Amino acid sequence: MDFAHSAAAADHLERIRAFIHDEVAPVEPDCLRALAADPWTVPPVIEELKRRARERGLWNLFLPAESGLGTLEYAPLAEEMGRSVLAPEVFNCNAPDTGNMELLHLYGSPEQRDRWLRPLLAGEVRSAFCMTEPDVASSDATTMAATAVVDGDEVVLDGTKWLATGTGHANCAFVVFMGLSRPAADRRAQHSMVLVPMDTPGVRVERLLPVFGRYDPPYGHGEITFTDVRLPLDAVIGGVGRGFEIAQGRLGPGRVHHCMRLIGLAELALELACRRATRRTAFGRPLVDLGGNRERIADARIAIDQARLLVLNAAWKLDAHGVEGARSAVSQIKVAVPSMALGVIDMAIQLHGGAGMTDDFPLAAAYASARALRLADGPDEVHRAVVARAELAKYR
Amino acid sequence: MDFAHSAAAADHLERIRAFIHDEVAPVEPDCLRALAADPWTVPPVIEELKRRARERGLWNLFLPAESGLGTLEYAPLAEEMGRSVLAPEVFNCNAPDTGNMELLHLYGSPEQRDRWLRPLLAGEVRSAFCMTEPDVASSDATTMAATAVVDGDEVVLDGTKWLATGTGHANCAFVVFMGLSRPAADRRAQHSMVLVPMDTPGVRVERLLPVFGRYDPPYGHGEITFTDVRLPLDAVIGGVGRGFEIAQGRLGPGRVHHCMRLIGLAELALELACRRATRRTAFGRPLVDLGGNRERIADARIAIDQARLLVLNAAWKLDAHGVEGARSAVSQIKVAVPSMALGVIDMAIQLHGGAGMTDDFPLAAAYASARALRLADGPDEVHRAVVARAELAKYR
Amino acid sequence: MDFAHSAAAADHLERIRAFIHDEVAPVEPDCLRALAADPWTVPPVIEELKRRARERGLWNLFLPAESGLGTLEYAPLAEEMGRSVLAPEVFNCNAPDTGNMELLHLYGSPEQRDRWLRPLLAGEVRSAFCMTEPDVASSDATTMAATAVVDGDEVVLDGTKWLATGTGHANCAFVVFMGLSRPAADRRAQHSMVLVPMDTPGVRVERLLPVFGRYDPPYGHGEITFTDVRLPLDAVIGGVGRGFEIAQGRLGPGRVHHCMRLIGLAELALELACRRATRRTAFGRPLVDLGGNRERIADARIAIDQARLLVLNAAWKLDAHGVEGARSAVSQIKVAVPSMALGVIDMAIQLHGGAGMTDDFPLAAAYASARALRLADGPDEVHRAVVARAELAKYR
Amino acid sequence: MDFAHSAAAADHLERIRAFIHDEVAPVEPDCLRALAADPWTVPPVIEELKRRARERGLWNLFLPAESGLGTLEYAPLAEEMGRSVLAPEVFNCNAPDTGNMELLHLYGSPEQRDRWLRPLLAGEVRSAFCMTEPDVASSDATTMAATAVVDGDEVVLDGTKWLATGTGHANCAFVVFMGLSRPAADRRAQHSMVLVPMDTPGVRVERLLPVFGRYDPPYGHGEITFTDVRLPLDAVIGGVGRGFEIAQGRLGPGRVHHCMRLIGLAELALELACRRATRRTAFGRPLVDLGGNRERIADARIAIDQARLLVLNAAWKLDAHGVEGARSAVSQIKVAVPSMALGVIDMAIQLHGGAGMTDDFPLAAAYASARALRLADGPDEVHRAVVARAELAKYR
Repeated sequence: MDFAHSAAAADHLERIRAFIHDEVAPVEPDCLRALAADPWTVPPVIEELKRRARERGLWNLFLPAESGLGTLEYAPLAEEMGRSVLAPEVFNCNAPDTGNMELLHLYGSPEQRDRWLRPLLAGEVRSAFCMTEPDVASSDATTMAATAVVDGDEVVLDGTKWLATGTGHANCAFVVFMGLSRPAADRRAQHSMVLVPMDTPGVRVERLLPVFGRYDPPYGHGEITFTDVRLPLDAVIGGVGRGFEIAQGRLGPGRVHHCMRLIGLAELALELACRRATRRTAFGRPLVDLGGNRERIADARIAIDQARLLVLNAAWKLDAHGVEGARSAVSQIKVAVPSMALGVIDMAIQLHGGAGMTDDFPLAAAYASARALRLADGPDEVHRAVVARAELAKYR
Repeated sequence: MDFAHSAAAADHLERIRAFIHDEVAPVEPDCLRALAADPWTVPPVIEELKRRARERGLWNLFLPAESGLGTLEYAPLAEEMGRSVLAPEVFNCNAPDTGNMELLHLYGSPEQRDRWLRPLLAGEVRSAFCMTEPDVASSDATTMAATAVVDGDEVVLDGTKWLATGTGHANCAFVVFMGLSRPAADRRAQHSMVLVPMDTPGVRVERLLPVFGRYDPPYGHGEITFTDVRLPLDAVIGGVGRGFEIAQGRLGPGRVHHCMRLIGLAELALELACRRATRRTAFGRPLVDLGGNRERIADARIAIDQARLLVLNAAWKLDAHGVEGARSAVSQIKVAVPSMALGVIDMAIQLHGGAGMTDDFPLAAAYASARALRLADGPDEVHRAVVARAELAKYR
Repeated sequence: MDFAHSAAAADHLERIRAFIHDEVAPVEPDCLRALAADPWTVPPVIEELKRRARERGLWNLFLPAESGLGTLEYAPLAEEMGRSVLAPEVFNCNAPDTGNMELLHLYGSPEQRDRWLRPLLAGEVRSAFCMTEPDVASSDATTMAATAVVDGDEVVLDGTKWLATGTGHANCAFVVFMGLSRPAADRRAQHSMVLVPMDTPGVRVERLLPVFGRYDPPYGHGEITFTDVRLPLDAVIGGVGRGFEIAQGRLGPGRVHHCMRLIGLAELALELACRRATRRTAFGRPLVDLGGNRERIADARIAIDQARLLVLNAAWKLDAHGVEGARSAVSQIKVAVPSMALGVIDMAIQLHGGAGMTDDFPLAAAYASARALRLADGPDEVHRAVVARAELAKYR
Repeated sequence: MDFAHSAAAADHLERIRAFIHDEVAPVEPDCLRALAADPWTVPPVIEELKRRARERGLWNLFLPAESGLGTLEYAPLAEEMGRSVLAPEVFNCNAPDTGNMELLHLYGSPEQRDRWLRPLLAGEVRSAFCMTEPDVASSDATTMAATAVVDGDEVVLDGTKWLATGTGHANCAFVVFMGLSRPAADRRAQHSMVLVPMDTPGVRVERLLPVFGRYDPPYGHGEITFTDVRLPLDAVIGGVGRGFEIAQGRLGPGRVHHCMRLIGLAELALELACRRATRRTAFGRPLVDLGGNRERIADARIAIDQARLLVLNAAWKLDAHGVEGARSAVSQIKVAVPSMALGVIDMAIQLHGGAGMTDDFPLAAAYASARALRLADGPDEVHRAVVARAELAKYR
């Protein structure tokens, strides 16, 4: 339970900071401007940055098998990346690709790994994850309407998925689709996960959806219909009926990554708040000396530090006890961290006045992305239920 | 202090409800879709709706001199309009035009009223209000950098304003500009308000700014530079040096209108939350029977009802005691209502799951507009200071 | 829905204020000191104050049949009384006697009214209400364990009640007991309410309980056992099986009174906070100019004003639509007001530093009594359920 | 930064748990009952328990020089003790004696240590700390009114102190008094700390004060006047003018102890809440399945875990970087932990219904003691200022 940075983590952290400072930050504003003007064309500089990051070994750090770093070691790196919009992609550590790479690493057949994992690890393609559906409460997998039915040596996919982040990206080569295969089986053995190339007949991106008003180019959040999509059986990951199990396994480390990136985002917001509050004046004093502003800065510092420790604790549990042993700890951070980040970012927005609402500062976008995390990968309510169940079990 | 609807208010309320239900709501989705595709072209149906609303006398109801309705009587009508994106404009009750009409009504010369108020009242043109600046804390007027200097029989405007809502609208004919005229005068007599036709040389809309990720077409929030803009002295409203006084007077009823529209928006969010929570199921039960959802619905009902009563109280005070006598009451609602609305809307978003983040429901947009109201027309902090000052004065 | 004070309310309010200021406040500290030294002896000055209040017609104002004042008219009087520890008793407007008087007025037989209501109205005796039990969740009447069984021409009471406020008072002459009479009847027709003289054989005050550390002399919160307590059938109020119905009717106006007294208590706390914060200095400035103290004062003012309006609204509904028509409105205030009062009082305590924790100021005691109100007369959770049910019913 | 229990900590923790379970818990209820009946007589069983704890080496564990345990190692032991009212005293780890022992250990002369530290370490006497004054804001030492003036070879003490916990205890042998010695010196060199035997002429306990309605026997919170109290100069600790410095040094580890005891109290409250919520039923279901109760239990678990990690972090910093290096970290926990504990305890009270308000459960008392900690050892506001200052310093 030692939360100090390991030597490897400390070394990577320093190099990531330097790379972001020297290479990413200077081009980020232009890059975002280019995307605002031409949302679905990936600015060439991104590929160039990826190349350089890869050369320096700052690549795929999220995946223990590649980087040799445990979840706890990777956590501070994820925090650092969270401060930058481009960094996760530049270091090939961007969701949902990260989750898909983990999934293929753990459950993929050699052929699946060769065909899909290899180019993902190389940063040549991108991918998406199709679980959420518009017409059901997706936190309850048993209500899932999409199907993945075995028909001879084929699996046939039907249904509508949405909010599939990354499906607007020019390089999105495939999605991981989850559907119902065996309605009569045990609740945890009904679903399958299937690898679906984007160009498979019957796959159609109906539209890209705004999330809190943003289309988030160049990734995009798609609504996708699957109509009689036929794939060979070897497109199924890990075997028919293992979808639920795989989904559970996929999400543990990913939630730690999400939360650490949010910690980074909250730190960025607090830094901006401090800078603004000390430099801008009103009524004859710096903002920080007006009303409760200092208290809010103190509360933000306390909230971030508590949350970070909780995430490190969950990361440590994942490393020490595995996904199952860390279930409640991971649900804890999924509840605590987005709310904490929203509070800190909102405070920073308020301190920025009107400017905080615009995109001249990264705060309004940060708020939207933190807010989405109260729903993505399970809403707060579902994670609270997990935590409560574990707690009450002690007394039964 | 009778908060029951007057006969006139009740009659208008019923007719507004019917008009929105029968005429506005059916075309709203198409209208928003048209704006998403072609943001800065006003869909023709809006002019048609305005024509019909005007025919039925549902027009300029916000302005006592036109409608014969007091602030307290108008409040429930504003609430009703707040539930619809298009309604405020359709009934010619949209900010910032409403504030500008009040201002011209109260302080405009006969010529100014004829040239600018008449077409505004007729819904022929739109307008904007230019007070906020990017480089200063705009809640403290003494930091204002823009100038409105008298030079012979001209007034010369220089400076940069931003977040001027409406400046992207195709029909925006003029703005009200506030600038520093007499730096040496008493703090409350330094500024002037000037009527500036959009086509005056030296006026330039530099860009439209996203507010929480949204450009809010067809209105837009502009950043505008004024460079050696020269206007005849009769463009000054109420006389040089009266800007501060006019700004104070302008904002009283407007804040009540804003708050009542937010009450309507919160009611809409609660209605959507109740409908969703009773119809969608997860884990074998309607959402409303899961976890704390019922409690959240109760809390939302309580919060809305409290807030509405507080706004009605402020409206009553405005009618009974004027802007000055209602100052603290108006600041109270400006603090309480946006926060209340944000809480209710956020709860409704969470109950909608991923759908709540998209624009398939009006919730994410509602959140953005309620959040903006914690900054627009004075940030919470400034209004809290007003309330505290009034409270402490009792004991000094 | 006119919340302005009626002429009768305004007149009474002025006279109550003067009486408290001139007669009650000066003797209150000595009185509390006497009770601290000798808790269960009623200081003689209280009877003297009661005599004088009665002479001036400031007596039984809570009861419309006696005072001619509606609930809405009485509300500001209750608020005023809430600022003083002694005032409610001095004006014979103290719970639980007030509820018992209402109950006897509404449901008592002429004999019951003559024997018990008359001396209560005269302030000659006091009474208590025995509903809550230590071993069941008392908010669910169907779990009630105490029995009130008809045996021939007698009713026989058995069971344990507790937290029966007033049972430590030297003049407590009787209690109203609620027990199960007909387990097989409809849920709302199972219970009876019985008038029980304190000296009836089988009635025993086992102990007085501290509530948040306080015994609240001279009233006390007793745990009382009823062992084969036999009373003639005419001790039953309103008839066997009507207990549930009577309980519901009893609690409507009483909750408004409780809430208005809490409003008064919150006002007192805010006043003390303002006085302290402007007079005490630290770090070279009055406390009010440190950190977020002004904001907290503003928030307290806003919270109190919102809550008062909500209570007035519930009072108006009770007058206009009766207990049933005001059910949700009354539950709203029962949720909102104690929490509001706790927040304001806690803020005032914090501003008083260590002194706020002691009994040198009325704040710590006020906190305890406001906290108790989140449980007494139904916990928040039960009232939230009432509010949510009413809200959801609109959409079913 | 390894938060795992060391072998020594784990061993002590197990033995403390066993001792509390086997020896303390069984006698605690009788002990509390005895104190309620006869508040200022220490029940003999306490001395007996102390003797046994000492025999087993569970003694003075808080003091590194005695126990060999660092702050981080002691933290879980303090948490365990915090669950019991008697345990801190039984293990001779009770405030304010602990702080006084640290202070004497660090700053006492050999004679002072022999005369006062030795019997404290032996548990033969108790002591108190006199810093807070009724008439000034004690968080600002510069406002302190009490004086400790050097007069020849004597120091003369005058002033009134209050809320001096322990001054009602039968064995309270001395107090540590802080007073102003050199008004003209630098702000941090004005005060002195003086050892004052309780029986010194001029020392008078004027009264014991209730804290949130409780006198907290057998300790008591005294108001003490010092009138021309003359002591030899060697009663001054560390030299005249070092009071401020010593006060700062005294409070670092003590605040960690306080916070860890509160963590233990919050854990106890959560345990009681879980037990109650699973065993008591209403409306046909265990309480835990009603409304938001499960969510509240989850939130409590998350809040406690976050807070504990933050305290361990501060403890680690104290060990690694000393009091000065841990200043902001210690202020963080002083803000975060009492508020967290209050929230958890309040939730547990609410789940217990009326019983939670009484002393049949330890919850109401726990609330009072957690609330006091938002003021004792510096109010939240002062600690927030420390945290904010450290944060803002990064950007100046």
